[in-house]
Amino acid sequence: MATILRQVARLEFSGFLSTLSGGCRHGRPYARSHLGSNNRNMSTSSKIKVELDSSNGIAVMKFQNPPVNSMGLDFLTEFSISLEKLELDKSCRGVILTSAQPRIFSAGLDIMDMYGTGPEHCGAFWKAVQDMWLKLYGFSKITIAAINGASPAGGCLMAMCCDYRIMADDPRYAIGLNETQLGIVAPFWFKETMVNTVGHRTTELSLQMGIMYSAPEALKIGLVDQLVPEDKVLSTATNTLAKWLTVPGHAREISKSMMRKPTVDKLLANREADIENFIGFITKDSIQKSLGMYLAALKKKKV
Amino acid sequence: MATILRQVARLEFSGFLSTLSGGCRHGRPYARSHLGSNNRNMSTSSKIKVELDSSNGIAVMKFQNPPVNSMGLDFLTEFSISLEKLELDKSCRGVILTSAQPRIFSAGLDIMDMYGTGPEHCGAFWKAVQDMWLKLYGFSKITIAAINGASPAGGCLMAMCCDYRIMADDPRYAIGLNETQLGIVAPFWFKETMVNTVGHRTTELSLQMGIMYSAPEALKIGLVDQLVPEDKVLSTATNTLAKWLTVPGHAREISKSMMRKPTVDKLLANREADIENFIGFITKDSIQKSLGMYLAALKKKKV
Amino acid sequence: MATILRQVARLEFSGFLSTLSGGCRHGRPYARSHLGSNNRNMSTSSKIKVELDSSNGIAVMKFQNPPVNSMGLDFLTEFSISLEKLELDKSCRGVILTSAQPRIFSAGLDIMDMYGTGPEHCGAFWKAVQDMWLKLYGFSKITIAAINGASPAGGCLMAMCCDYRIMADDPRYAIGLNETQLGIVAPFWFKETMVNTVGHRTTELSLQMGIMYSAPEALKIGLVDQLVPEDKVLSTATNTLAKWLTVPGHAREISKSMMRKPTVDKLLANREADIENFIGFITKDSIQKSLGMYLAALKKKKV
Repeated sequence: MATILRQVARLEFSGFLSTLSGGCRHGRPYARSHLGSNNRNMSTSSKIKVELDSSNGIAVMKFQNPPVNSMGLDFLTEFSISLEKLELDKSCRGVILTSAQPRIFSAGLDIMDMYGTGPEHCGAFWKAVQDMWLKLYGFSKITIAAINGASPAGGCLMAMCCDYRIMADDPRYAIGLNETQLGIVAPFWFKETMVNTVGHRTTELSLQMGIMYSAPEALKIGLVDQLVPEDKVLSTATNTLAKWLTVPGHAREISKSMMRKPTVDKLLANREADIENFIGFITKDSIQKSLGMYLAALKKKKV
Repeated sequence: MATILRQVARLEFSGFLSTLSGGCRHGRPYARSHLGSNNRNMSTSSKIKVELDSSNGIAVMKFQNPPVNSMGLDFLTEFSISLEKLELDKSCRGVILTSAQPRIFSAGLDIMDMYGTGPEHCGAFWKAVQDMWLKLYGFSKITIAAINGASPAGGCLMAMCCDYRIMADDPRYAIGLNETQLGIVAPFWFKETMVNTVGHRTTELSLQMGIMYSAPEALKIGLVDQLVPEDKVLSTATNTLAKWLTVPGHAREISKSMMRKPTVDKLLANREADIENFIGFITKDSIQKSLGMYLAALKKKKV
Repeated sequence: MATILRQVARLEFSGFLSTLSGGCRHGRPYARSHLGSNNRNMSTSSKIKVELDSSNGIAVMKFQNPPVNSMGLDFLTEFSISLEKLELDKSCRGVILTSAQPRIFSAGLDIMDMYGTGPEHCGAFWKAVQDMWLKLYGFSKITIAAINGASPAGGCLMAMCCDYRIMADDPRYAIGLNETQLGIVAPFWFKETMVNTVGHRTTELSLQMGIMYSAPEALKIGLVDQLVPEDKVLSTATNTLAKWLTVPGHAREISKSMMRKPTVDKLLANREADIENFIGFITKDSIQKSLGMYLAALKKKKV
């Protein structure tokens, strides 16, 4: 059954992505840039490819979890381990997050980890989500999101945790915390990350309605910092990070920590309660039913 | 004497409204929409008319407290009772606030409840203001302000408590927390409601200067969300609310509460002190004198 | 040696100012307005000239600490004393801060007070910086910054502490908290002053990168409120202050205090720890070395 449900999940995001008009433009395979001798492949796993260019200290984390880089327990665990390695690696000075999948940055948390999996799995999953956020929002080095596709929910969260956001200038790509549209609720630390990015009022509107913003709208409200043509997203991110690296690093790190520590500390002081709260909410019959109906509706749409 | 003073109060807001050029355009009687069989008149009182359309769950609260919908103790008490009924009424899913008076949404708190009425009345009045705010800002269902006229002070507060604000696109209508201009001070929870809407800097400027923003200015700073022609304000509000009703309600409610609960809790923890503070301030000779001079000046202007 | 270093400091800011294209336009001597009999010269010191116009209650504080109005211990002490006198002087109703030097409002804290001076001097210096901020951010009367030139670091802080900011409309003049670019860190109360002015996200970006904004950029992000031609900065500030004086003063003061007191209280509760923190940071070998290299680089640039 889990396999079937996973297929449904695939359908789900295909459904989501079907709003993007098809065609060759986005259908091309991901063009991998040539790797010179400076590049070190840090990872042998299948879900995230980490390449560190020792000539400039820039690491690129490419999400390669087809079809839509959904963040299941495995993905999140691998992400946190990879990020911790980069935090400790003195040759790394900054990290770019991007996607190896066409048309999608990340579809967010994997619903299959929350649907029909029971309280124990849900708790372990939520702890992994917390870990991802704590490590990324609290990361001392420079982080840039190269958002080369749609970025709903957890994908948006990950982008908001970065220091700078560059998005593909394509109105068919949308970004936002749309949890409410699925009948679930973004936790307080998702909320605070968004308030710190776009302010209180826009966050209230976003979370009540579950709004997805097109790339131009996201730029307008400050949810992303810059739009560039899709094929320039990664190179612009690299150039931007190189520019950030000219800033005295120690002072920049302390300044970043000063801005974010109060928000990080709030979750650290409430991790267990937050996990219990999530388990209590997500395992409710009504919420499970709502997720099930959502998945069924998407399956039906595609069949 | 109270009667005379009430007449002065009427003059006051006529004075305020005299900045709006007269003429037929705004002089037409309020056009009441035809009520089909789905409409239920929830209220027999004279100050607020509540109509609930059982076909879509949308309640409209029309302020009909001539001439300027000023919020006296009676008005506020009726407002809170009506809102509490709607909160408990399962057939109601959202509420629109609007005015049945021409050219004015609400002129705000009734000065006559604060001028020459003594500490006991002032305390009861302030408790009613708190009640209105607590119930409206903490209302679990969707609230939309259909701002079809000027909206100073308490009128602006009420609008800011709603989830969405649609205002008549007429630069002669202004909105803002202008208490300072009258020599009085907006309490901390007015301030926090405004900070949550337009941010810290705009709030500081607004409260120091008592700024009234024209409709286009209010849109620009985010004090309202949308401008439409005056005769479309209510219909746009209805259509907008219908759209909001498509969002999963339980998740939306929890998200709204997450955004607002910290602000609501602050007043709940300080209600008595806030009342004492208000009484101490408003009954000061200097403040009473200032209110008296303001009223006299307005009376003189009209005579 | 101190003398030599002070000369280097002069060079430093000349280096900074060299980004401004030279030429006659800005080279003219500061045009002192004619002082009528209403003007009272409040100060005999050399670093800040205070003129109070008893006809309207407007005091102008002109920074005259050549070449770049850097804020050393003497300047800060004099500033705080002057401001306290104005706070207590009932004939003063508002204060304008401006510069008597061409092309510069203030270059900010004097690095020479932090470089090679030892922990005791650094502690006394930092206490004076705190005093300046506490008095200016908590000043009960109206304050307007007439920013007639570049305004980095402490200069930007001082401007942000005012109630309103008018800047010369010249893209060669820049303003911002650029401490990070010098390898030092803005303390939490600088940060909070900026968050209260431009919001969390812009502050995070500013502090991480040490961004200097051109006058037009500063207007766009809300770091200043208005741009006017350079020769109109002071007259616009005077006219603006006169307009503010029409607002009931007592209510305005309380409103200002309500907005700022929580931020002021945070430093008051942490003054000693903040001083210790500063001493510990600034006397580090690595930071001293970084400041030394910065000064040397600037000296080299000019020689």
